[in-house]
Amino acid sequence: MNPIRVTIWNEFRHEQEKEHIRAIYPQGIHQAIADGIAEYGFDIKTATLDEPEHGLTEAVLAETDVLTWWGHMAHGEVDDAIVDRVQKRIIEGMGLIVLHSGHFSKIFKRMMGTTCNLKWREADEKERIWVVEPGHPIAEGMGEYFEIPKAEMYGERFDIPAPDTLVFVSWFQGGEVFRSGCCYHRGQGKIFYFRPGHESYPIYYQAEVLRVISNAIKWCAPVANPVVKFGNVPQFMD
Amino acid sequence: MNPIRVTIWNEFRHEQEKEHIRAIYPQGIHQAIADGIAEYGFDIKTATLDEPEHGLTEAVLAETDVLTWWGHMAHGEVDDAIVDRVQKRIIEGMGLIVLHSGHFSKIFKRMMGTTCNLKWREADEKERIWVVEPGHPIAEGMGEYFEIPKAEMYGERFDIPAPDTLVFVSWFQGGEVFRSGCCYHRGQGKIFYFRPGHESYPIYYQAEVLRVISNAIKWCAPVANPVVKFGNVPQFMD
Amino acid sequence: MNPIRVTIWNEFRHEQEKEHIRAIYPQGIHQAIADGIAEYGFDIKTATLDEPEHGLTEAVLAETDVLTWWGHMAHGEVDDAIVDRVQKRIIEGMGLIVLHSGHFSKIFKRMMGTTCNLKWREADEKERIWVVEPGHPIAEGMGEYFEIPKAEMYGERFDIPAPDTLVFVSWFQGGEVFRSGCCYHRGQGKIFYFRPGHESYPIYYQAEVLRVISNAIKWCAPVANPVVKFGNVPQFMD
Amino acid sequence: MNPIRVTIWNEFRHEQEKEHIRAIYPQGIHQAIADGIAEYGFDIKTATLDEPEHGLTEAVLAETDVLTWWGHMAHGEVDDAIVDRVQKRIIEGMGLIVLHSGHFSKIFKRMMGTTCNLKWREADEKERIWVVEPGHPIAEGMGEYFEIPKAEMYGERFDIPAPDTLVFVSWFQGGEVFRSGCCYHRGQGKIFYFRPGHESYPIYYQAEVLRVISNAIKWCAPVANPVVKFGNVPQFMD
Repeated sequence: MNPIRVTIWNEFRHEQEKEHIRAIYPQGIHQAIADGIAEYGFDIKTATLDEPEHGLTEAVLAETDVLTWWGHMAHGEVDDAIVDRVQKRIIEGMGLIVLHSGHFSKIFKRMMGTTCNLKWREADEKERIWVVEPGHPIAEGMGEYFEIPKAEMYGERFDIPAPDTLVFVSWFQGGEVFRSGCCYHRGQGKIFYFRPGHESYPIYYQAEVLRVISNAIKWCAPVANPVVKFGNVPQFMD
Repeated sequence: MNPIRVTIWNEFRHEQEKEHIRAIYPQGIHQAIADGIAEYGFDIKTATLDEPEHGLTEAVLAETDVLTWWGHMAHGEVDDAIVDRVQKRIIEGMGLIVLHSGHFSKIFKRMMGTTCNLKWREADEKERIWVVEPGHPIAEGMGEYFEIPKAEMYGERFDIPAPDTLVFVSWFQGGEVFRSGCCYHRGQGKIFYFRPGHESYPIYYQAEVLRVISNAIKWCAPVANPVVKFGNVPQFMD
Repeated sequence: MNPIRVTIWNEFRHEQEKEHIRAIYPQGIHQAIADGIAEYGFDIKTATLDEPEHGLTEAVLAETDVLTWWGHMAHGEVDDAIVDRVQKRIIEGMGLIVLHSGHFSKIFKRMMGTTCNLKWREADEKERIWVVEPGHPIAEGMGEYFEIPKAEMYGERFDIPAPDTLVFVSWFQGGEVFRSGCCYHRGQGKIFYFRPGHESYPIYYQAEVLRVISNAIKWCAPVANPVVKFGNVPQFMD
Repeated sequence: MNPIRVTIWNEFRHEQEKEHIRAIYPQGIHQAIADGIAEYGFDIKTATLDEPEHGLTEAVLAETDVLTWWGHMAHGEVDDAIVDRVQKRIIEGMGLIVLHSGHFSKIFKRMMGTTCNLKWREADEKERIWVVEPGHPIAEGMGEYFEIPKAEMYGERFDIPAPDTLVFVSWFQGGEVFRSGCCYHRGQGKIFYFRPGHESYPIYYQAEVLRVISNAIKWCAPVANPVVKFGNVPQFMD
């Protein structure tokens, strides 16, 4: 079996514009994730907002099995034509993993049909991420829970469609809960939203977070099925 | 309790442009539905594509609890700004019932995030609509199944997100099945997709179909809850 | 429309055996709930473990639309034949609301198929119950969250099937989360599990808790449908 | 990675008692399935009703990752203690695949909590099995649909909990539909119900059916997670 082809997409602005963010992710969040999941044997590429076509050309997407998405301050700069293109590929079977502030990306809102809004607070709070569906492959190896020592809080109401499968629920010190690991089938593709991660914390170096991303890549990988035929069909003859 | 305020929206083109369709729905599909569900005690208005703002002004939507949607040949003429407006109202709590060829409407595709594509065939086939969740309020009074004597066929794969609750599954003479009654929560609103109905068949005069639409209106009606607050929140004080 | 016929079932042992519990619920938890939801216009009866047939005779169940269940120390004393009888009625359409420690009742475990086990701790912790599906009728009037000032903690992993709809998620001071409001269709009946409540806290006097129970009774009420026919069926003739 | 350890369980009565069934499955349905999926690289054992402990000793189950279940005429002879044991293993993570008339097995009814009743008819009807979730790994390689040339009909209403994921829906010549491929998480285990198969048809020699069973074995395989701890827990210390 060929390795799963992963494209790690990053907005890559905070890291270039702010010294204290660059100190955490000197080569960008995308590179930290790419390095962090290297051991799992995927075929990994990266792409960023400021590349031509945001690095997501037709050719790149055609060779991508799973796309991961991190964005925050520049969601509005993502070209609608590229969003259309990514949506089309998901419908055809490509997996999408949306990370943290990617909840507000155009592509996630497009796929969900809702505002994807939430509550948030930056107060260095502890997050405890509970596994509520321990038999799900994305929970593999995670035990009963894992912790992020300091995190930005995301709280309910999270305005998303109820996930097909809810894998993780976060507890925050300050009094909130959050649906942190959400699985969706959309078209022939699969989507996983995973909450942890913020540009100002070294969360994408944490082993548990990288393990979940790797598990999710495997779960999101396309199934070998022909593209479904739609439209006018004749009656079956027997 | 005040009656549920229903706005029945219709594209209203086939009926005006084609004699043989007008023969079936002389005052339009919207009026047939309005008359057909009159006995259920709703507060009913209608709106159509060619009215200013498609009849869906801010004022109309603000006073609509449940919107039903029928369209077919002119989906592309629906103004994107009106689609935005309807989406916003659904997120706030308004119910939406999408009928038959409304599967391809901008608003349904917007809310689903997928192509909403399907197979179809016009061959006067019998449709038998099976109740698969008999305890659901939308199935009330429907028995085990009901039939449409002659229908346009819609067949799987139907490219929608798996419904939160699947109430009906259709059988077609020619060899297809279809998820015909699909419930969704989106934002604070609720959406029901209901398959039966085509401009060339008198399906919206059939008692079972009208009963399902009425049941769905009750199920879709908004819940009295304040609009959720999003954004930056302080920590709780105790 | 006739009022919904509710039978409030209570184990009714703690209140009789322990002075400090009786001080909180002098006439039993069942009576506190019955009084607390009186304003909502249901037709209410109560039944308890030590009555003949636990108060759940064929006649009582035949006239019950929704049964609420509270038990804790004596789950094992519930007669299996009565559990069979209650299960049969749920399959036929009766609603079931399982409260707090009822998670370990024979009837809930029977309907879920799993152990229904969980984590727990008695430490007078604050519970904050978040509404994650604000458009659901059981959430009506609850705002964004409500609090139980002092509660027994219940924590994930809660070994239940993923609910058809997850309405509430609890946050606990000590670091846990819990799926606190869980909706299920089973047979033609509907089941709602609601976490709050413990014999040593006056939780069943709290307005929000009583409101949720009332909302759930309405949601759980049977749908007027004939009992489904099963077994060998002839082919359709046309 | 070690191969998935599969135990194929069969009632194995029809084949021994009836000449015309033995003609189809000379060494039993279990052996036909075992041979049929041999190419997929699993570590396969078989077990049957009349072996001591039905071939499902503690030792056998401890070394089983996925159990497949076929039974029909002798469901009542399965020892309740063995049903308890299998349920316990599923809760711990073992996969269960229930085939055809296994819908009425004690273990399936136990895990579902419902009657698992359905409509049926033996009339050599064609069954067309439609893929409604083409991105699901159990649908891999199945195209848009596949057919069983002659099958016993199973029809809705099928009294099961709505599946976590519905993968297949069957169409039958005589006018019925059926949810034919149903995925469930229960405890840490996963369950797949798959409709096709009857002792009087050579359905378990059909490549598509064997492919689905193989896909389902992979999907059902346990996730490497420690058994969840339940019960009284201390507060977290930080």
